[in-house]
Amino acid sequence: MSQLNAEISRYWHELHMVRPLVHNITNYVTANFIANLLLAAGASPIMADARDEMEEIMAISSALHLNIGTINPETLGAMLAAGKAANRLGKPVVLDPVGVGASSLRAAIVQNITAEINITVIRGNSSEILTMSGYGPSGKGVDADSLMEEAEARAPLLATELKTIVAVTGPEDMVTDGKRAIKIKNGHPLLCRVTGTGCAVSALVAALAAVGADTILACAAALAAYGLAGQRAAQDAPGPGSFQAAFLDEIYALSPDDLIKHALVEEVSLT
Amino acid sequence: MSQLNAEISRYWHELHMVRPLVHNITNYVTANFIANLLLAAGASPIMADARDEMEEIMAISSALHLNIGTINPETLGAMLAAGKAANRLGKPVVLDPVGVGASSLRAAIVQNITAEINITVIRGNSSEILTMSGYGPSGKGVDADSLMEEAEARAPLLATELKTIVAVTGPEDMVTDGKRAIKIKNGHPLLCRVTGTGCAVSALVAALAAVGADTILACAAALAAYGLAGQRAAQDAPGPGSFQAAFLDEIYALSPDDLIKHALVEEVSLT
Amino acid sequence: MSQLNAEISRYWHELHMVRPLVHNITNYVTANFIANLLLAAGASPIMADARDEMEEIMAISSALHLNIGTINPETLGAMLAAGKAANRLGKPVVLDPVGVGASSLRAAIVQNITAEINITVIRGNSSEILTMSGYGPSGKGVDADSLMEEAEARAPLLATELKTIVAVTGPEDMVTDGKRAIKIKNGHPLLCRVTGTGCAVSALVAALAAVGADTILACAAALAAYGLAGQRAAQDAPGPGSFQAAFLDEIYALSPDDLIKHALVEEVSLT
Repeated sequence: MSQLNAEISRYWHELHMVRPLVHNITNYVTANFIANLLLAAGASPIMADARDEMEEIMAISSALHLNIGTINPETLGAMLAAGKAANRLGKPVVLDPVGVGASSLRAAIVQNITAEINITVIRGNSSEILTMSGYGPSGKGVDADSLMEEAEARAPLLATELKTIVAVTGPEDMVTDGKRAIKIKNGHPLLCRVTGTGCAVSALVAALAAVGADTILACAAALAAYGLAGQRAAQDAPGPGSFQAAFLDEIYALSPDDLIKHALVEEVSLT
Repeated sequence: MSQLNAEISRYWHELHMVRPLVHNITNYVTANFIANLLLAAGASPIMADARDEMEEIMAISSALHLNIGTINPETLGAMLAAGKAANRLGKPVVLDPVGVGASSLRAAIVQNITAEINITVIRGNSSEILTMSGYGPSGKGVDADSLMEEAEARAPLLATELKTIVAVTGPEDMVTDGKRAIKIKNGHPLLCRVTGTGCAVSALVAALAAVGADTILACAAALAAYGLAGQRAAQDAPGPGSFQAAFLDEIYALSPDDLIKHALVEEVSLT
Repeated sequence: MSQLNAEISRYWHELHMVRPLVHNITNYVTANFIANLLLAAGASPIMADARDEMEEIMAISSALHLNIGTINPETLGAMLAAGKAANRLGKPVVLDPVGVGASSLRAAIVQNITAEINITVIRGNSSEILTMSGYGPSGKGVDADSLMEEAEARAPLLATELKTIVAVTGPEDMVTDGKRAIKIKNGHPLLCRVTGTGCAVSALVAALAAVGADTILACAAALAAYGLAGQRAAQDAPGPGSFQAAFLDEIYALSPDDLIKHALVEEVSLT
């Protein structure tokens, strides 16, 4: 049993003791799955996007999760208001830059958000992290593994530049603040066949960041728990429909002891 | 077999004969689950929120369900237009004041709705009913059972004040118009681990209010059917993912005879 | 083995080779199910509705799917922008005129869309196709079979008038461009007890239209695959909750060979 495993296991336990309320300003495609994931994990979700109530809702919430999946100008206003309130109250803010490379609107919105709000964690896939690092969306034909490798090389620089923590997820996951880095190797390909699995892991990062003082470890706990539940759900699922239900069941059943025994986490050196 | 059981069973039968169209103006988080619940129960859902079509859609619908979960000012306009049309046409209106204690915006919106529209039923959890009764959101540490007790004590006064029926749901449910009250003791804790179960029971109340002349009994039928399906779904579900699917299956399979035999409903005196 | 079966089977194979990105501007009720269906079928979904990014998103997408389920004036602007971009780029556009008979707003919006955009395929149920053919929403009491018969009679005229392909779905499906017609007889009644099954089949039509040169055959492939997966999912599903999960599993597992053997497709003459 590694020290890392023990620590992320403790955070998972804390999550179930504290049951933090996580405020999500997110897209309408995966909002339902995000809410169900948070509930299954022992946290409480709130979803709201009227600008006028952002300060009050942030006041009763323990963390903020921003997702630009179906962003429009009005929602951006709510995100900025909630983010500023979160910063003022010292509560963690997780940004999920969904499809940031797909349009200049998304690029501008992400730039606006990162300029106005101190983001605690950016959680994205390799394409999104590469786009944020200044590398435009790659053309077709680039395989997932080499994209991941490239994104992992850029993530520490992005983290340093934005003074944040970057979590890249994919065939394997990496989280880094530019000085330290942890790799997480739990996961299963069926997670890519269910919409919102990326969105929901960002929400889980927010929930764990609300209870864990060391945010890099909180991210690692979220990613390991997520990946491990995915591995288990895939064992008996013939396809993505039953996998999705089994995945929520496994997140619900996952114990701190499971993370001690089965989380594949390791500190890596940034050279 | 009690008389109450026979009557709510008859309403459940009517629901499957009439298959009422229920118009929902609701949040984007749980809209999918609400629609699936209505379909599983034998009703038909319609979801629309463009103000300009509210009158026509209300004209072809048998009941209106308003849910403020992700409310914004434009949607409020649609709610008021639909509610006024429903009132004029004599069709029942069910209000779900989601998180009314979470912001002053929500409190103002609920006040606006109840001032402009005759609400047939307000369906909320104990916190929401207490907030609407003039008791602010309780601090942490208040347990669910004592909140429920307090809400049940306040519900008849709220019903009398707003000339409506109030349904409080939680560990047990109560429905009252201020003079009569029915308690419903079906249910299962896993219902709290799936998002939208509160929202969807409000929609089911609207569907049953469309077919049952005695609205208190219609509410009791909805709450008993819901709770009973929850109990049955929980029997073999290892967690909230499979529970959600099993719950829709059980609502679909639930017969009038099941309600005669297993609905835990009783008239209680308001003293 | 018929020639038709061989051809639609080839399109299903192509879908899994090409994995087209399908852009959906759709309603918030069924967006999640649409995305999961596309993923299960091997395609990639994108959902976005900010007008300012429509051109860029259409540039990276292979097809456009428009659904007016929860339409409002802002979304209409995004639909028109995306549709014009799709036309200019020569990419197929599928329109799902959800509930077009329910309000004059919907009728006007559909008229606006069909006037400004060249629609490749209109996919609707019999009521929607009849409404678009100039026959107002039928009163209650008209049974599904006679509605279907009427819609099938009108569909070729509508296709000719709008210079498009019309796919009517119901107890059986028909697709026609006014000169040729194919009937598809796969399917299961439980598909009507899950919200979004109509919406999602339109998205699948868009995905197949992106890979198949003969759009009528692409429609037939989508409808046959959909219906066949529904038949298989219903075999062991006790109700709509488990059916929905099983349906995604079956779409995921469906092979070209399954379509060769079990697709019930036949060319019919338009007399």
